[in-house]
Amino acid sequence: MLNSVDLSLTVDKDDYEEQFEIYADKLGYLQRKLRDLEIPVIILFEGWHGSLRGTLVNRLLSALDPRGFKVHSAAKSDCNYKEKPYFAPFWSELPSKGAFSIYNGSWYFRKLENEVRSKEDNISYEDINIFERQLTDDGYLIVKIFLHISHQKQKKNWEKLEKIYGKEWHKVTFNEEEPKAYDDYYSVYEKMLDETDGNNANWHVLPAEDLHYAELKTFEVLFAEIESYLNRKEHVTKKLYAPSEPDIPNILSRVDLSVKVDKEYYKEELKKYQKRLRTLQFDLYKHKIPAVVVFEGWDASGKGGAIQRLTSFLDPLGYQVIPIGVPNVVEKQYHYFWRFWQYLPQNGEITIFDRSWYGRVLVERVEGFAATEEWQRAYQEINETEEQWVRHGILLAKFWLHIDKDVQYQRFEERENNPDKEWKITEEDWRNREKWHKYEVAVNEMLYRTSTDYAPWTIVEANSKYYARLKVLATVVDLFERALKNN
Amino acid sequence: MLNSVDLSLTVDKDDYEEQFEIYADKLGYLQRKLRDLEIPVIILFEGWHGSLRGTLVNRLLSALDPRGFKVHSAAKSDCNYKEKPYFAPFWSELPSKGAFSIYNGSWYFRKLENEVRSKEDNISYEDINIFERQLTDDGYLIVKIFLHISHQKQKKNWEKLEKIYGKEWHKVTFNEEEPKAYDDYYSVYEKMLDETDGNNANWHVLPAEDLHYAELKTFEVLFAEIESYLNRKEHVTKKLYAPSEPDIPNILSRVDLSVKVDKEYYKEELKKYQKRLRTLQFDLYKHKIPAVVVFEGWDASGKGGAIQRLTSFLDPLGYQVIPIGVPNVVEKQYHYFWRFWQYLPQNGEITIFDRSWYGRVLVERVEGFAATEEWQRAYQEINETEEQWVRHGILLAKFWLHIDKDVQYQRFEERENNPDKEWKITEEDWRNREKWHKYEVAVNEMLYRTSTDYAPWTIVEANSKYYARLKVLATVVDLFERALKNN
Repeated sequence: MLNSVDLSLTVDKDDYEEQFEIYADKLGYLQRKLRDLEIPVIILFEGWHGSLRGTLVNRLLSALDPRGFKVHSAAKSDCNYKEKPYFAPFWSELPSKGAFSIYNGSWYFRKLENEVRSKEDNISYEDINIFERQLTDDGYLIVKIFLHISHQKQKKNWEKLEKIYGKEWHKVTFNEEEPKAYDDYYSVYEKMLDETDGNNANWHVLPAEDLHYAELKTFEVLFAEIESYLNRKEHVTKKLYAPSEPDIPNILSRVDLSVKVDKEYYKEELKKYQKRLRTLQFDLYKHKIPAVVVFEGWDASGKGGAIQRLTSFLDPLGYQVIPIGVPNVVEKQYHYFWRFWQYLPQNGEITIFDRSWYGRVLVERVEGFAATEEWQRAYQEINETEEQWVRHGILLAKFWLHIDKDVQYQRFEERENNPDKEWKITEEDWRNREKWHKYEVAVNEMLYRTSTDYAPWTIVEANSKYYARLKVLATVVDLFERALKNN
Repeated sequence: MLNSVDLSLTVDKDDYEEQFEIYADKLGYLQRKLRDLEIPVIILFEGWHGSLRGTLVNRLLSALDPRGFKVHSAAKSDCNYKEKPYFAPFWSELPSKGAFSIYNGSWYFRKLENEVRSKEDNISYEDINIFERQLTDDGYLIVKIFLHISHQKQKKNWEKLEKIYGKEWHKVTFNEEEPKAYDDYYSVYEKMLDETDGNNANWHVLPAEDLHYAELKTFEVLFAEIESYLNRKEHVTKKLYAPSEPDIPNILSRVDLSVKVDKEYYKEELKKYQKRLRTLQFDLYKHKIPAVVVFEGWDASGKGGAIQRLTSFLDPLGYQVIPIGVPNVVEKQYHYFWRFWQYLPQNGEITIFDRSWYGRVLVERVEGFAATEEWQRAYQEINETEEQWVRHGILLAKFWLHIDKDVQYQRFEERENNPDKEWKITEEDWRNREKWHKYEVAVNEMLYRTSTDYAPWTIVEANSKYYARLKVLATVVDLFERALKNN
């Protein structure tokens, strides 16, 4: 894509100034319009070192209402950009509905720097395409701009920057060693542009020898992208990613709920597992291995009790339990996966989710909170996301706590008759119970579609609480032990 | 305080188990009650290394609804605990209304570790008292628990921990060098307990030779503290910190608004300052000096324009403009200063506030959004906070952009008649204008009470936009230059 760009394009200074004013007003107007329509926008700038992106970005910002944007950069050695999976900082920096996030160096930045240095990297352009698709599917507008300059211009700009900031400029600006030759970058850029130009978000390669020209072009690109977005009648993609098949196996019906253990055995085994877990937690901490444990299950299936047995010997500094309910007003401003990325563990720590992102294909599906295409494409989104997490090194365990309808009824009754527990039971629990069959269909499809090699479901027979707790502990212990053995 | 603690106290194991169940239910009940009353609670644990605080905290957590608490620790080498002023992480970890924050190692932790090693430290116990007062004044309940054990017990516990976790335990657990002798800590703890036991939050030193005994005592302390809090009829302190004096000088009336500069001069000087600022930003970045620039002023006094001229030559990676409006639903869940702490710059970066925490003594005072005692004590809170920031090394500039009523009227009219600017003017601006005199009183008191040696106000004569912008730039350039000279 680079060699087809005409680098000789320029703009006359007076024309530029006049045009800039007009464009700035227009962009300000569009910003307010997008805000009213609650459309989140990401504008990202990549390009040559020395293409003066910063100057261009600053000019662009001057046209925007500061209440509506934030500027980010993956080029900063921020602690946000360490430890967690590659896309974690970008998820947490997502614009809320109606806001702009502007990147001067985005999720392409680190990947490109690694490529040009032939450094190991476990992120592919396909991962980037997946990330962008997940966002655009959810209604985010992503505009990608690449500033292109010649080798000669690059050298000239560097000299200019050195004159302004002094000789140290180069040393302070690049955290890593001196950037490689122009030619090395050239082929890396070409490949990147080729592999990530797609249906979700197209690249706009702008000639930036004359920065004023590139500024005006940037406005024009934004106008065109915004217009095209607004012209699409339905901006949420309506394609069905994984249409429901009629023949999802009834996995739940095959679960043997009669299994149980007696109290003595339970007590002994429990202690044993808990002590083992205590040292395993410490070993994970030492080896900086993060873990995520997900609990899903019927109301009153004993998730809380199982979590408590899982954590009661752990050091509270190294784990957190995240109970997931209805998203709050802030969380509703973002992609449904946004909040879960925030809770990912630091290396060496454990996050336990009491309900999770699977709400998308369970309660949101059954209650109609998510549109059909939203929960249908969620299976793929979930698998893609979990695959990235596991690849990053997160140990992931997922439990479905299964009970039958009679046991649930008994437990509801017990709760209602116990003054210390009645707060746990609400009208909603009884209402959910009436939708047992609908949930059964959703759970079967979830288990069928999201049990993968890298992130299998463990179905826990939970009519017997003792049995269930031991199975959860045994599974977690086994997962941690295997990981430490392979470490 | 330590030597008056009876370390021989124990509890019988059966009694303990029975009592624990009862206490756990009671605490669960109180947690729900505090949630309904929207009272934020901080429970912090300090104490000897090896007092097994983690185990005790975990037992306490098992009694709580996980939807209502978060566990934190300053002992973690989290990136939250670096770079920013000492209390920044604790501000960002504040519990929201009705929630619990539980600390295993709190804002005392680092201070104590520094004390025992005689390490330089620019935080005093007085600072801690100020922090706790600011929170308790705002209705936070703070419960402080110290676990006390003998030297003998400490050694025994360490042996036990080594047996569980292996020899490495000690090395991995302490980030810094081996802790000092028991006696060294003893005197440091004594001093700390002595200096920070006060009206805002009392220390409870619990004997923890028998951890079960300490667990039950912890519950009892919590019950007593919660009860005493709830019994106080008015939990927001009603004392007036700085009662309004009748003779606040009319500072605004002395401002000479006739000053101006011509366009040619403005253009030349502006370029000069902007170029200078560009290199100064780079120098601050190199020297890791953070800066905060605050803009307050009348509606239409030209804050936005001044900010734009300030930033237009800067590298967008190193500054952020934070426009402050009405707090959103999340921000309303916290102390009014909470959101401002979130925006403090990293070292080497610049945060520009378009309106700020001064809203407390301006709009919130005039409109009655803050109670009288709230805005009255805010002067002191603001001065205390700014003093801490400046002591940390933040360069702080505060601008009041002053115009007269006629100029405001002209500018409002201009905005209304310009289709590209009319969105900037609302009914509210006209309503605020009617309260000009009330604002004048509030501004005079603000300037009078919060202009300090370490954080003086700069009043900017802003009838002439050109003059105002140059004065802002000159002031910032001067502040940065002086800081770099002294660095």
